[in-house]
Amino acid sequence: LLFCEEGVVEWREISTGVVVVSDRCFRGERADAGGPAVRKAVEEYGGTVARLEIVPDEVRAIAEALKRLCGRCDLILTTGGTGASPRDVTPEATREVVERELPGFGEAMRARSLAITPHAIISRGVAGIAGETLIINLPGSPRGAVECFGFVSAAVPHAVDLIKGKQVE
Amino acid sequence: LLFCEEGVVEWREISTGVVVVSDRCFRGERADAGGPAVRKAVEEYGGTVARLEIVPDEVRAIAEALKRLCGRCDLILTTGGTGASPRDVTPEATREVVERELPGFGEAMRARSLAITPHAIISRGVAGIAGETLIINLPGSPRGAVECFGFVSAAVPHAVDLIKGKQVE
Amino acid sequence: LLFCEEGVVEWREISTGVVVVSDRCFRGERADAGGPAVRKAVEEYGGTVARLEIVPDEVRAIAEALKRLCGRCDLILTTGGTGASPRDVTPEATREVVERELPGFGEAMRARSLAITPHAIISRGVAGIAGETLIINLPGSPRGAVECFGFVSAAVPHAVDLIKGKQVE
Repeated sequence: LLFCEEGVVEWREISTGVVVVSDRCFRGERADAGGPAVRKAVEEYGGTVARLEIVPDEVRAIAEALKRLCGRCDLILTTGGTGASPRDVTPEATREVVERELPGFGEAMRARSLAITPHAIISRGVAGIAGETLIINLPGSPRGAVECFGFVSAAVPHAVDLIKGKQVE
Repeated sequence: LLFCEEGVVEWREISTGVVVVSDRCFRGERADAGGPAVRKAVEEYGGTVARLEIVPDEVRAIAEALKRLCGRCDLILTTGGTGASPRDVTPEATREVVERELPGFGEAMRARSLAITPHAIISRGVAGIAGETLIINLPGSPRGAVECFGFVSAAVPHAVDLIKGKQVE
Repeated sequence: LLFCEEGVVEWREISTGVVVVSDRCFRGERADAGGPAVRKAVEEYGGTVARLEIVPDEVRAIAEALKRLCGRCDLILTTGGTGASPRDVTPEATREVVERELPGFGEAMRARSLAITPHAIISRGVAGIAGETLIINLPGSPRGAVECFGFVSAAVPHAVDLIKGKQVE
């Protein structure tokens, strides 16, 4: 829908941060499998994960991690905390940080996942823009996170370009 | 995406409340067909409707009914008030009561209904979590309510389990 | 899902306003192609565009144009400002004006557009009800705007009827 003035950014130029949201991983009770899985998926596209943080399922901790990474990363992928459990608050934390939401990412991830499992309907993940950074919530399971990232990744470079004001109508 | 620690709850263990939102039914000008239709659908899954209330299309009346049923029910299904008429305010009342929204339910109901009628796009129904209760808005027509319930029912027992904190990552 | 008491309104009875949101068109640096494209699409359905305004990508300017047209139009179609660029704020302006959102319109436009281009996921367009007026955000590209209007137009007359309170359950 938009044409590019300066050429679309490539994945290798996109600095990605990953935020693992999990009480158990944060406390060291469980090895983090989601972070490495997302990192591998990003690297397969040619991108690099500049930073990976593990935080507990707390709105404040998640929001602070997102804000810390915003200045340094073009893209932040969270994994975990998007479900319906009492401790799942990643969407709420993300909404506190973004200025503008991008509803299409969550919609597309749920619609595509729904073809795989009826439980996908429960996922509450959101996406949005914080300054010049695109934030996307992915599910907590390594397989779900990688699948959902795959459903939306084709639009990420163009979105990053737009967010940085590098493209015009 | 999640595995169950204690076994998934079964429909017969889920206490369901039904809130019929309709000025005409509340005033007794019209027999309520939506409530019995939803009750029958729940019972066909093996569930039980512990409570059925009829309220007018008023934000306060709807919200109060939802709050009354929250402590007693695992699941509340509303029927009516999700359209675009001036009196349709069920989504607004539901948003006042839930702490966290579950956007996938409304998205899936609209997407699936859209294959049946283009008017499905007008439906504004939401779903969300209030304490330990799952609330889902269904349309007002008995057929539409039962159809939409069918589109999302497969995820309800798992969602109820998650909301009650009975499952973990 | 609803039956009509007085007969569904026809497109020729719907007064439509078009708001073109574009800094470049507003400053006269670029000819407006989106407005004429949307006007032509509305006229092909038998509708009439009573008013067309061009405003810059500013929340206040967009919101004021929407409010000006609300009293005069049954339907307002915006084109432009729904993307992820720093200046894209049409959804935010629309949310300031509408009392109740209609999430189905944006969902359907994105889902249908996604079959054409993966970039459709970035579109942030919303729709909603302001008084007796239906407002729908369309993308900025003439082709995208006409395509998206086509995806949702079948529900517009019924929605306009409902919003004006001309139909009942």
